[in-house]
Amino acid sequence: MKLGSLQSSSIDGELVIVSRDLSRLTKASDIAPNLRTALEKWSEVEALLHERADQLEKGTVHYQAYDEAKMCSALPRTWLFADGSSFIYHVKLVRMARKAPLPETLETVPLMYQGECGKFLNPLEDIPQRDFSYGTDFEGEVGVVTDFVPMGTTPEEALKKVRLVLLINDVSLRGLIPAELAQGFGFFQSKPASALSPLALTPDELGRAWKQGRIHLPLEVKYNGSFFGHADAGAMHFDFGQLIAHAAKTRDLPAGAIIGSGTVSNEDHSKGSSCLAEKRMIETIETGQPKTPFMQVGDTIEIMMKNEHGENLFGRIFQKVKKVP
Amino acid sequence: MKLGSLQSSSIDGELVIVSRDLSRLTKASDIAPNLRTALEKWSEVEALLHERADQLEKGTVHYQAYDEAKMCSALPRTWLFADGSSFIYHVKLVRMARKAPLPETLETVPLMYQGECGKFLNPLEDIPQRDFSYGTDFEGEVGVVTDFVPMGTTPEEALKKVRLVLLINDVSLRGLIPAELAQGFGFFQSKPASALSPLALTPDELGRAWKQGRIHLPLEVKYNGSFFGHADAGAMHFDFGQLIAHAAKTRDLPAGAIIGSGTVSNEDHSKGSSCLAEKRMIETIETGQPKTPFMQVGDTIEIMMKNEHGENLFGRIFQKVKKVP
Repeated sequence: MKLGSLQSSSIDGELVIVSRDLSRLTKASDIAPNLRTALEKWSEVEALLHERADQLEKGTVHYQAYDEAKMCSALPRTWLFADGSSFIYHVKLVRMARKAPLPETLETVPLMYQGECGKFLNPLEDIPQRDFSYGTDFEGEVGVVTDFVPMGTTPEEALKKVRLVLLINDVSLRGLIPAELAQGFGFFQSKPASALSPLALTPDELGRAWKQGRIHLPLEVKYNGSFFGHADAGAMHFDFGQLIAHAAKTRDLPAGAIIGSGTVSNEDHSKGSSCLAEKRMIETIETGQPKTPFMQVGDTIEIMMKNEHGENLFGRIFQKVKKVP
Repeated sequence: MKLGSLQSSSIDGELVIVSRDLSRLTKASDIAPNLRTALEKWSEVEALLHERADQLEKGTVHYQAYDEAKMCSALPRTWLFADGSSFIYHVKLVRMARKAPLPETLETVPLMYQGECGKFLNPLEDIPQRDFSYGTDFEGEVGVVTDFVPMGTTPEEALKKVRLVLLINDVSLRGLIPAELAQGFGFFQSKPASALSPLALTPDELGRAWKQGRIHLPLEVKYNGSFFGHADAGAMHFDFGQLIAHAAKTRDLPAGAIIGSGTVSNEDHSKGSSCLAEKRMIETIETGQPKTPFMQVGDTIEIMMKNEHGENLFGRIFQKVKKVP
């Protein structure tokens, strides 16, 4: 099933189920007021939500038109956003771009940082920028939402804790990253609020594309309305089981934790990129200098994913950059 | 007033007000179910909570005995824990200990990372450890809880957003830090769940000790029942206004955000330390090698703060290390 959060008077939005064809939605706030609380009592509500989703497909429950403009990010806020960097080609390109060495443990230990989870931008919400010298970039990612994961869970067991899958635009401020990482404490100001896809899906919605702890489908990225990337999200070096287990090595993960894949990236340049930093580095390799600037006022980024039948799975993230004081 | 969270069937606990002498508490869950939601509608509930606190002091409201064993951390979970490192002497000592260079911006830009906020350990809860090669350490800190802070707020304005003050035991796994920082993404596994003091205080409870955005009182740290530290928490290089503004440079901060001071540390060694890593480094400077080991099973850490009249302000954090599978 496809779950989402309708904008409401609550920061958490109101829990809704959306039809497979993205035409209709039905409220499920009588089952759980919002998706965050549904995840906290998943074993109680899962069957009820599936039943309601079946009714929605059959048209036997009250529904309304799905309007993407009225949606929050699938989880408007949650308790943890742990973002990995599991596409090694991305790590290679961005480190090359900032002349930083590759970690010795690149292929054995996941890279992961903790990102803003107190408020995700709506999927169609403008990306607010105060200072364009910060080098505003998008990062197209896939992610999973977990159940409670006890500390020390193995990768195999961790994969069983995946409750939902979704897409992420992990907004990054490239100009702030070198100075921040030079301080030694990792990202903070360089990783402002991200946006999630309007819909989070139970993994069964992906069919055969969900296997080996990865989503084997291309992530469609359009920049200012034009093709930018179509990279296979299944090319993750570490699978989500490994990423969740990494996050849970020394702590319990709360129900509703979001684990991100990192920027989706393939070595085949014909697949394009999922962030500007990569494209700029490829341009530098090919021509000696980057020619694509970072995002300016009015630039738009669209991120979505279709299945093998061409069906839009998660709705879309579509954001424009705006200047704020 | 002193606010806290009584253990209940909810992860968030139940909102209570505790008397100044820590003898009594009264429930305030009719005003807001828990402290997190109270902070989200502070302007609506503040006067009601103060009125109830006055009634508690006068004994004109139903109350029960305060039992520290029944308390959660003041905020059992929240949307952001941004931990600064504002005591520069601490930064100098721990970087010396791991032979890491000092950041060039040490005195101009705060160090800050994002820590686990999805579940704080209870103030009397054991610190669970799976592997003692991780180098378990405590860090005694002070912190503030903010109202909603819009992106780009100045340090002066940010200081006005402080709603509560509290104490923090920021558990750190020293053995994991060098490898994690070498990866370049900052702390994650090396910063497991922390604990907060049972009580969070409105700043007026500190009287004249709350000034210049700092808490001018010593932080009492006892290790295995003996004196360990008594360092002045007012010696922060950056004040809380600067730390909040740093956190809010590129994002809004949610109501209920916790901003930590970093390990309280004074250059005067007679004041002791607030973490083992510092004591070990001082031993190394004085004798060529550290002699105090990191925490082992059964070791206890107690953190509290008294005012100039010797009154315990925040209750106490008292934690024992236990081995878990």
